[in-house]
Amino acid sequence: MPNGYNGKILQVDLSNMKMKVEEPDEVFYRTYLGGGGIASYYLLKGLKPGIDPFSPDNVLVFASSVISGVPIAGMTRYTVAAKSPLTGGFGEAEAGGFWGPELKSAGFDALVITGKAAKPSYLWIHEGKVELRSAEKAWGLESGPAQEKIREEVKEKRARVAIIGPAGEKLVRFACVVNELKHANGRTGMGAVMGSKNLKAIAVRGNNKPEVKDVEKFLDLAKSLTEQINTHGPNKVLRKMGTANLVMALNTQGILPTRNFHAGVFEGAEKISGEKMTETILRAEEGCYACAVRCKRAVEVAEGPYATTPLYGGPEYETLGSLGSLLCIDDLAAIAKGNELCNRYTLDTISAGVAIGFAMECYENGILTKEDTEGVEFRFGNADAMIKGLEWIAFRKNRLGDLLAEGVKIAAEKIGKGSGKYALHIKGQELPMHDPRGKTGQGLSFALSPTGADHVEAPHDTPFAAPGPMLGRIAPLGLLEAVPTRDLGPKKVRNYTYLQFVWSLYNSLGVCNFVAGPVWALPLNKLVDVVSAITGWETSLWELLKAGERTVTMARVFNLREGFGRKDDTLPDRLFEPLESGPLQGKGIDRQEFQEALTLYYEAMGWDPKDGVPTAGKLAELNLSWLDEYLKDKR
Amino acid sequence: MPNGYNGKILQVDLSNMKMKVEEPDEVFYRTYLGGGGIASYYLLKGLKPGIDPFSPDNVLVFASSVISGVPIAGMTRYTVAAKSPLTGGFGEAEAGGFWGPELKSAGFDALVITGKAAKPSYLWIHEGKVELRSAEKAWGLESGPAQEKIREEVKEKRARVAIIGPAGEKLVRFACVVNELKHANGRTGMGAVMGSKNLKAIAVRGNNKPEVKDVEKFLDLAKSLTEQINTHGPNKVLRKMGTANLVMALNTQGILPTRNFHAGVFEGAEKISGEKMTETILRAEEGCYACAVRCKRAVEVAEGPYATTPLYGGPEYETLGSLGSLLCIDDLAAIAKGNELCNRYTLDTISAGVAIGFAMECYENGILTKEDTEGVEFRFGNADAMIKGLEWIAFRKNRLGDLLAEGVKIAAEKIGKGSGKYALHIKGQELPMHDPRGKTGQGLSFALSPTGADHVEAPHDTPFAAPGPMLGRIAPLGLLEAVPTRDLGPKKVRNYTYLQFVWSLYNSLGVCNFVAGPVWALPLNKLVDVVSAITGWETSLWELLKAGERTVTMARVFNLREGFGRKDDTLPDRLFEPLESGPLQGKGIDRQEFQEALTLYYEAMGWDPKDGVPTAGKLAELNLSWLDEYLKDKR
Repeated sequence: MPNGYNGKILQVDLSNMKMKVEEPDEVFYRTYLGGGGIASYYLLKGLKPGIDPFSPDNVLVFASSVISGVPIAGMTRYTVAAKSPLTGGFGEAEAGGFWGPELKSAGFDALVITGKAAKPSYLWIHEGKVELRSAEKAWGLESGPAQEKIREEVKEKRARVAIIGPAGEKLVRFACVVNELKHANGRTGMGAVMGSKNLKAIAVRGNNKPEVKDVEKFLDLAKSLTEQINTHGPNKVLRKMGTANLVMALNTQGILPTRNFHAGVFEGAEKISGEKMTETILRAEEGCYACAVRCKRAVEVAEGPYATTPLYGGPEYETLGSLGSLLCIDDLAAIAKGNELCNRYTLDTISAGVAIGFAMECYENGILTKEDTEGVEFRFGNADAMIKGLEWIAFRKNRLGDLLAEGVKIAAEKIGKGSGKYALHIKGQELPMHDPRGKTGQGLSFALSPTGADHVEAPHDTPFAAPGPMLGRIAPLGLLEAVPTRDLGPKKVRNYTYLQFVWSLYNSLGVCNFVAGPVWALPLNKLVDVVSAITGWETSLWELLKAGERTVTMARVFNLREGFGRKDDTLPDRLFEPLESGPLQGKGIDRQEFQEALTLYYEAMGWDPKDGVPTAGKLAELNLSWLDEYLKDKR
Repeated sequence: MPNGYNGKILQVDLSNMKMKVEEPDEVFYRTYLGGGGIASYYLLKGLKPGIDPFSPDNVLVFASSVISGVPIAGMTRYTVAAKSPLTGGFGEAEAGGFWGPELKSAGFDALVITGKAAKPSYLWIHEGKVELRSAEKAWGLESGPAQEKIREEVKEKRARVAIIGPAGEKLVRFACVVNELKHANGRTGMGAVMGSKNLKAIAVRGNNKPEVKDVEKFLDLAKSLTEQINTHGPNKVLRKMGTANLVMALNTQGILPTRNFHAGVFEGAEKISGEKMTETILRAEEGCYACAVRCKRAVEVAEGPYATTPLYGGPEYETLGSLGSLLCIDDLAAIAKGNELCNRYTLDTISAGVAIGFAMECYENGILTKEDTEGVEFRFGNADAMIKGLEWIAFRKNRLGDLLAEGVKIAAEKIGKGSGKYALHIKGQELPMHDPRGKTGQGLSFALSPTGADHVEAPHDTPFAAPGPMLGRIAPLGLLEAVPTRDLGPKKVRNYTYLQFVWSLYNSLGVCNFVAGPVWALPLNKLVDVVSAITGWETSLWELLKAGERTVTMARVFNLREGFGRKDDTLPDRLFEPLESGPLQGKGIDRQEFQEALTLYYEAMGWDPKDGVPTAGKLAELNLSWLDEYLKDKR
């Protein structure tokens, strides 16, 4: 094949600063694309099963994609991946912002980092050059001051910096990575892996925009996408309220996670809603590189105990849920403060909130007492407790902080006393703010995501539950029939399976599901056109979705290799129990239906129904026969 | 879903002339498309497993497609399907010509015919009306005179007539159906099923061209396709020599079936080549409705024992092989005559030639003698024997004719004496003129085709064996790597699997692989555009290839229901044996490699490796869970 795409992948061993630059051929790039695809490849090839995620042997991948870095809305996301210290399995988290495109302009599609720096360090990548520098002055600092120090040292104010705060350094198992202090690679503890490698940050700066093969076609697509975004209903809502628009939408449906998923309706919902935020503390609508959506918030609480600066952005829906309704906290200022602290410390807001919810439920049930909480009444609704909890976790300050910093799974194991039933996690990762009892596709997505409970691994099914324009948007997939939200039959499994491929593709291409795909401004077929215009490839939705399926399969094999199996593809007991109030009161997920759906899914994927091990034939079909060697003892 | 496509399907019970017109919704049409897709649907729904193919219970489907009938090159093919009297399994044969588009203009996408007419009859369909008329005057006649009679009776010279000759009436198990006397639905004995239903012909005439949703886009596509055809190398070769160009091409590669597949090089190849035909007996290049390729031949032998009229067309490559090199016959006039007779009698030229080859090899080995052959020396190379054989078979004239009319499988069973090893068939259907020993993908295709050995169920792999423009043409499938022709590893299985979906899609859409797809003028992505322009659907290569996969799976379930399994997915012993001469001398298919490839394929398809039974999950994924009930005792 002629090479229609020229890219470089940088491998760095921090232990000895040996570096290698690979220039893979077109077959590689079309097979793996970027993000989760390229990350899975290097994790499978370079990482030995069974290693401690905090050991130098962990492989840490930062991956942009073949289409990132050129000016078009919603295609800036990049992946950070490694073996997860939270789950012990496949770790991956995406972030928007500006870092991914900058890496491309600096000359690289991806970084593959191994080893451990002898002392706190950061990488400085600029114009194709790479330096490992001492992070002596930045180590110990919160993300903001640390970023400032590094920008001073490299004498480049415009350097984009992916960085960790104290939570990463302290190996909090759900520490995140942020760029621009507010775009988080949130899930699976990638910040802790950076910490374990003594890697405080990666600063990048470049001036070489990636090539676009068909400039005219690309400009047309970029322009029409921006027009779509500016006129498309759901995008207008996103610009006006950010993801926070979901608070009221889900509360109305009875699936706004409340009181640690006991309920789906929160009395204080309006007070923490997108509407309220827009009216009160919103200072600016912000966005990612080249994006017209501008769904990001910068908020400011001018005074009081929860005074915040807009420098660290503002709460997303997930955070309004995890630090708000989940904990029965209806104080928007406190949530904004909690959000700021998470970005300063680099804590994942979802896991942090669920960890605090776990502690609150333990406290209310007498499993934790004031002795454990420095005298704080650690009850649902107590905003101060939430703020204190975040600090304790980030710095592992007291025994409770140290326990919660391990994630709810390990914390519950250590606490014992039946606390496990309050620990809402899957595979060790805490539940995002979506309740599968009102959208069963989300249940499959949570159970089957290789990263544990994760809301960006596959969509939930609400938009596809009714005929009309939304359904029309997934027509190119052949998903033509509306399927009720609570259904778990073969048609739901079919929808879920195909849409998982779509979401996996997004995570490989670095595409944001607020612009692309079935739900928002960019139809799937246009995404194919975008890939084609940038890379010059004559590709198709077939080739691209097969790449999506391939990445799902690679992540599965990674987890199988680490000992995961069917037993781990499940939901916390609470989700099988009935909701306690609201429109879906009395509704839980049916255990048998769920197991049947799981079997159908495994079979649909070409995995054995016993443990979800891909067959040799399925691997052959996906051009992944090189993975057979890892499954020898599994078949 | 809004209905972007309006179509009608006519159901006729010949036993009582009850008729029903269905108007399926868009979900149906997008799921099944036409041709093999719609046929499989009605065969599975309407046909009881285990029935005698010659009983009134057989379901006979004539199916055009959602894109047929509008003026664009290469999209005129229609399917005739039923339970095959030759294999006892899924029977299906496609033909080009003019009948399919005419059916659409007459108001129907497909006909579903059950029952048996009380006496010889034909259907006359015109302008949405349907009549069953007596075929008293046409019955017993060859295709040509019979067509003339019918056109006279319906007073419409321009009626397009799908018709059978004596071979169909006599229930020769490989009798075909022809339209315009030369476009044959050749394989699996569909003409015999017509005969068993006392149905001599279906004459159609209509004036209502199907609607095109985006006329401007369609005209652009049709025009650029014609331009491509007029300039694209392989299409120019096709126009100049027809499919007959393959004689010398395959002979050079050492895979021109010769002497009943003993050899792959034929000494007399040049004498029966496309080059020779063009120089000598060619009278006209002909084509199908609206097609610029014009790959069809009309030949004329002016005088001598093999004098022919151009009315019945001219031999395709398959016929030059089956009545020529296979039988060591190097007399082009005799082959032309044999071709004419097959179209007059409506015999499938491939099965007929292989049946005669079988008889010749039996004769040379003393299993048949002059007593069986009316004194004729039934040896390889004897053109007169071939001509006589065709007549005997068509009219079941003597014991040998009657035996061969059953197909080589049954004939060998009846003859015994070890003759089975000379019977080159798969699942009862005779081998086409392609030797898998030089292109292993063809071996998979023959073994796995639901219709038995069939060269239009999936492509062979020669074009994809080397990098370059041909490989570029399958790039949208993600098949990016060249795979050697004789390889049978995972990459070959992958190529085969995807290309089988493509070919299955062609057979559902009625697309000719001489214009569309990976090999010829129309790239796959343009085909998607064509479907979209005609139907108004926002579709994709994903949705369309999944329809292709769906049809493969439905045909599999049909065969499983009839008792087929892994044991039937094989090749005749001869193909595992070494070729006796030529560039591939000494090469056979490796049995173990073949079995391993089969297992990989089953798994890639989501079928169990034991018997190729689709899992419930795979059926769910393809929106085919309604087939689960047929597989209850198979899983």
